[in-house]
Amino acid sequence: MPIRIAAFCGSLRKDSANRKLLNTCIELKPADMIVEVVEIRDLPLFDQDIMDAGTNAVVKTFRDKVAAAEGFLFVTPEYNYSVPGALKNAIDWASRPPNPPMFAKAAAILGASPGPVGTARMQYHLRQVGVFLDLRFVNKPEVMVGMAPSKFDAAGRFTDETGRGLVKDLMANLGALVVKLKA
Amino acid sequence: MPIRIAAFCGSLRKDSANRKLLNTCIELKPADMIVEVVEIRDLPLFDQDIMDAGTNAVVKTFRDKVAAAEGFLFVTPEYNYSVPGALKNAIDWASRPPNPPMFAKAAAILGASPGPVGTARMQYHLRQVGVFLDLRFVNKPEVMVGMAPSKFDAAGRFTDETGRGLVKDLMANLGALVVKLKA
Amino acid sequence: MPIRIAAFCGSLRKDSANRKLLNTCIELKPADMIVEVVEIRDLPLFDQDIMDAGTNAVVKTFRDKVAAAEGFLFVTPEYNYSVPGALKNAIDWASRPPNPPMFAKAAAILGASPGPVGTARMQYHLRQVGVFLDLRFVNKPEVMVGMAPSKFDAAGRFTDETGRGLVKDLMANLGALVVKLKA
Amino acid sequence: MPIRIAAFCGSLRKDSANRKLLNTCIELKPADMIVEVVEIRDLPLFDQDIMDAGTNAVVKTFRDKVAAAEGFLFVTPEYNYSVPGALKNAIDWASRPPNPPMFAKAAAILGASPGPVGTARMQYHLRQVGVFLDLRFVNKPEVMVGMAPSKFDAAGRFTDETGRGLVKDLMANLGALVVKLKA
Repeated sequence: MPIRIAAFCGSLRKDSANRKLLNTCIELKPADMIVEVVEIRDLPLFDQDIMDAGTNAVVKTFRDKVAAAEGFLFVTPEYNYSVPGALKNAIDWASRPPNPPMFAKAAAILGASPGPVGTARMQYHLRQVGVFLDLRFVNKPEVMVGMAPSKFDAAGRFTDETGRGLVKDLMANLGALVVKLKA
Repeated sequence: MPIRIAAFCGSLRKDSANRKLLNTCIELKPADMIVEVVEIRDLPLFDQDIMDAGTNAVVKTFRDKVAAAEGFLFVTPEYNYSVPGALKNAIDWASRPPNPPMFAKAAAILGASPGPVGTARMQYHLRQVGVFLDLRFVNKPEVMVGMAPSKFDAAGRFTDETGRGLVKDLMANLGALVVKLKA
Repeated sequence: MPIRIAAFCGSLRKDSANRKLLNTCIELKPADMIVEVVEIRDLPLFDQDIMDAGTNAVVKTFRDKVAAAEGFLFVTPEYNYSVPGALKNAIDWASRPPNPPMFAKAAAILGASPGPVGTARMQYHLRQVGVFLDLRFVNKPEVMVGMAPSKFDAAGRFTDETGRGLVKDLMANLGALVVKLKA
Repeated sequence: MPIRIAAFCGSLRKDSANRKLLNTCIELKPADMIVEVVEIRDLPLFDQDIMDAGTNAVVKTFRDKVAAAEGFLFVTPEYNYSVPGALKNAIDWASRPPNPPMFAKAAAILGASPGPVGTARMQYHLRQVGVFLDLRFVNKPEVMVGMAPSKFDAAGRFTDETGRGLVKDLMANLGALVVKLKA
């Protein structure tokens, strides 16, 4: 049985470096892993009244996809030193009772940013979110792609060889963590 | 000239304790302060491509209201140990160039939650966001309303007298900080 | 073979609530676990020159004890919304090359404080430290003993029954995590 | 009357890049500012019993120097993604009643590190500490000197011209903030 990972991209713009980085994750994932990209763009803003009504089809489909995964991959920029609102909104939907679909599973984070710090501040915020959700984040390697615009070629390929090695290790470690948690 | 504050409520549900707490802030504000509640519910999820197109009317109106304020008031629950996605999304819209309307102004945070910790974790995340935005947060008092459901009566009035005193102090300190930053 | 845990108390005062809480951890630990309390009081302030000289006997003994453990237990107050300097100093000594003795092991945190928030802010800082050290923290339960002075009797016994259950669960989960990481 | 700043260096080793950076702060400070370097090396580990006894001369001298300052400058490395224990220990001593000498004053942070992220993680932890202490941190510029070993010459001079400009701006902003808070 392959390992099933749900992946989220924190940036919604078309030419997103993080979307390209997510594609790199898929390119370099272990052979026994399936990565499904779960789109967050069509979710409404979280509202407990909508949750309680239980009739929103976009929310239902989204939560079903999250529930089907054994682990999570967050590929996201840093906005204002924290998690993009759009991604946090998706997490808010994924984590509410009943039967929170994003709970007690393995997870990994990486991110690309134009500056040198490379999404570090966002990553620790997301890890704190994960404590509440009982997510078990891969600790190492921490993948923070700084100076992102210079590291993807015209075809969208991530060209930094060291970075590619880190992505490959991260995906392998995520797979191994899923297996260990199931054992 | 009165002090102009833009206020944001991080919860979208109808019977929100934080909405009631925001009403309490307005009730207890200094006489020379105007608090405009800026709604965040109709904003799209942040997308740089929408920003670049520059044609979204909801975004434009929102940013104009933010730009008109001299200070900000965030009244919000804590979701998953951090800022609600809907509120973070509003901040993402308010903070992008050109001329970021949420930048280098005074700000205050408070929040209500059902548990005992009372939004503490969210508040420090929001303060970190504020470092990037050069916001000058009021430090004291820190207003964290725990066990919120028991502290509002049937008419929605905040009945905790100690808490009301803290809210009043916070609003006074926010006003004083706006004045000091303008001096 | 029993599970070997090194425990650290972040408070140095004689009548420390956290020391009593650490004693409670030992009282409620699983039968197959050995908890050695590693004292941090006699360590010098961290100085890389002392580290490089390699001749400080207190440091050497301390690092040897840390190296012998398979997991770590941090029982500590919150000072100024973060980790006590004395405990952070011990971590700084325990984490330096060569062969960092505090690295890539299981860990658990708990803390007692006089206020209602109960060391929450400190715990997330310590978890961030653990990302660098590749520590795998137990996520649940999160044990934050607020209003601590009222929860220990004259003999130093932790009398909060709900709290005792949480401590017992935390110790069991720490033991299980050590076993899982070794598997 | 000159502005009186107490400065703390978070690293104790002799050839510390942060000590050199602190010297750069003194070199580039405004003319009307006096920077006194307050040494933290001889402080004992914080122990409330020592505080209560009130007889430790090193602690007394240290607290008196902190009390005499109108603002604070923290120049420090990042250890294990947070504040060095030695510096946090000094803050713990400086912040206890009676009459906490480190309270409700202006402050600025900067740091040097060998890696690319340049002490960012430490700086946000220190800012959270400052919320409790009612410190008013300068927000901008944020000075994080990455790749530090390459940026100081044999005589210990900080040679990065952009970095020197940021240090100068930070010191000017710290002085201006002290003046504004006194107004």
